[in-house]
Amino acid sequence: MAKYFDNAATTIISKKALEAYNNISLNYFANPSANHSLGQECKSVLEENRLIIANLLKVTPNTIYFTSGGTESNSIILSSLLWSKSPGEIIIGKTEHSSILNFERILSEKGYKVITLNAPNGFISKELLKKKLTNKTRMVVIQTVNNVTGSINDIENLVKVVRDKEKEIGRKIYFHTDAVQALTKIDLDLNKFDIDSASFSAHKFHGPRGIGFLYSKNPNVQPLSRGGGQERGLRAGTENLAAIVAMRVALEEYLFIKNDNVIEINKYVRENLKPQIISPNSNVSPFIINFSVSPFPSEVFTRMLNDEGFIVSSGSACSNNVKNKGENVLIAMNIKPNVAKSSVRISFNKNTDINDAISLVKKINSLYDTLIR
Amino acid sequence: MAKYFDNAATTIISKKALEAYNNISLNYFANPSANHSLGQECKSVLEENRLIIANLLKVTPNTIYFTSGGTESNSIILSSLLWSKSPGEIIIGKTEHSSILNFERILSEKGYKVITLNAPNGFISKELLKKKLTNKTRMVVIQTVNNVTGSINDIENLVKVVRDKEKEIGRKIYFHTDAVQALTKIDLDLNKFDIDSASFSAHKFHGPRGIGFLYSKNPNVQPLSRGGGQERGLRAGTENLAAIVAMRVALEEYLFIKNDNVIEINKYVRENLKPQIISPNSNVSPFIINFSVSPFPSEVFTRMLNDEGFIVSSGSACSNNVKNKGENVLIAMNIKPNVAKSSVRISFNKNTDINDAISLVKKINSLYDTLIR
Repeated sequence: MAKYFDNAATTIISKKALEAYNNISLNYFANPSANHSLGQECKSVLEENRLIIANLLKVTPNTIYFTSGGTESNSIILSSLLWSKSPGEIIIGKTEHSSILNFERILSEKGYKVITLNAPNGFISKELLKKKLTNKTRMVVIQTVNNVTGSINDIENLVKVVRDKEKEIGRKIYFHTDAVQALTKIDLDLNKFDIDSASFSAHKFHGPRGIGFLYSKNPNVQPLSRGGGQERGLRAGTENLAAIVAMRVALEEYLFIKNDNVIEINKYVRENLKPQIISPNSNVSPFIINFSVSPFPSEVFTRMLNDEGFIVSSGSACSNNVKNKGENVLIAMNIKPNVAKSSVRISFNKNTDINDAISLVKKINSLYDTLIR
Repeated sequence: MAKYFDNAATTIISKKALEAYNNISLNYFANPSANHSLGQECKSVLEENRLIIANLLKVTPNTIYFTSGGTESNSIILSSLLWSKSPGEIIIGKTEHSSILNFERILSEKGYKVITLNAPNGFISKELLKKKLTNKTRMVVIQTVNNVTGSINDIENLVKVVRDKEKEIGRKIYFHTDAVQALTKIDLDLNKFDIDSASFSAHKFHGPRGIGFLYSKNPNVQPLSRGGGQERGLRAGTENLAAIVAMRVALEEYLFIKNDNVIEINKYVRENLKPQIISPNSNVSPFIINFSVSPFPSEVFTRMLNDEGFIVSSGSACSNNVKNKGENVLIAMNIKPNVAKSSVRISFNKNTDINDAISLVKKINSLYDTLIR
């Protein structure tokens, strides 16, 4: 049985969540948008689950919009800009997920000036953001936790910089954060953040694939696709009730499991790993450790680990057909290209066994020793 | 146990499909975009299932793109128009699903002239389409089966009209069809259709919610959101493998169950129902019968049926917060408003029990008799 250390790419669904999926699929299968009694029962289950999720996040249920996941949540916010008749400037981090970065092209074509920010050591600085904000800035997009290194941006204070600018220019600036790698993994206080919207994906916290949600407290977001008007017009399509309930079950389950085990594992790995660690030492998610096996290419090293039964990631592994994507993120962090191309990511979940992590470290060190000799 | 006659809104997942969902969720949980062995195993399962679906539809696997369902599939095609620097004219049927109709507003704002076609008796005529095609037409969108009445458009010959116009003007005109109510329900030959793209949704044929696919043989479609590059850039987001495999299982299962049972039920209902039938007599899906309980509002009648344990639909029931949506479709069919507002839809699946249908007809007739007296 292979030992899985690629939890930042996806986690296995929890037993309880899968049970909930089965139960809802069979017993609440009607269309929640139908007016009949079976549909209305499903509608009640839907709203009940929205309320529980909202309560878990300490926000109001009318800020939770169910989507198919992180990519779609990001896409709803970015594509809503296409309604604008007077495009202005958009500021995005260079280390964002591709579902954000890929909007650069169409937004530029549609007349937006897209400004991308470098993130030395993985962090967007308040000073740089402040410098780039102008009276034409419409939106700022900065991720909460970076998926390649685990670095945690100081969203609360980055938003403050934006809110200050708002007062100066007397106009709203929209702040969106991709928080896909954050929920159940780091302390997350959406109210303290004072953001306008945030993206979440269930399969990153042991929920099912194909479901997630958008937190949005700004009722003025104009989605491109409205369809049947589900999710108050923000995300059309028949509600995926079984997946929504399963996501809620996984969230309830994993939000309250403490990080102690992961923190202990993280500490062990950092103290015992021979290759150089790329992930920052502080303001970093304990779930992700990125290190460099320089001068060896990461692909070679991860394949060797794979052959020994250890599943780790080279690059971000969230994307397909995008060569060296993780590498680009690392270069935007001012990490030297030779270090970046030797980058390996290991990522944990709350059930990761410390003994497996010890075996992994032992294997990494011995492989590295053998190669370097 | 309520008797369910709202299968056009959604169908219950099949046991086999749900079993497949469970199996894949637990045993092939890695991210198909990851380079490691577990990811590559998932990638193989993904491509194997794409191939099976393509074979079932007698098309090549590179024309199948997995999406979150019908609404998203439609949205990918319609929103791709926003890339255009020289918007032209778009022709859409007035009886399309809301996920198509709702693009009218943004496309108009972005400079497109959107021409909507009336559909008397539920059908778009070749003559009307021919009249509306100009040398500025970029795209034609006409549904295969209407979700309110079940009327089947003559896609093959409608496409021929478009292809003839292409020759005349020496330029490509894109033809998209929403075939969500067609697959497993009517004969569907995508090759004979000669369309550019078609939308499909799994939960309409006993597959899971939140999954579907876009058939697209035009590699030039430019999606708005590319994200991680999954589905060859057309639909980003971590692949929902468990749902994809479950969809394939449901498709394999239901494609080969003959319609005999449904045809028999349909015949029985049509011969014995006292209220006036709105659905056309020919070129119509046997799975949907729409009838009018005029002068009584459909909401009142469906609620009474509901209280007696029969689940039927007023309006299209595919949409939420969109008042009288089915009614609007019926009015676009030149059906009188008083008949339209009394419209009730019953829809079957291949497992519908004829005895339940007999009880339903009996109950409808006796309620109608009591009310009309």
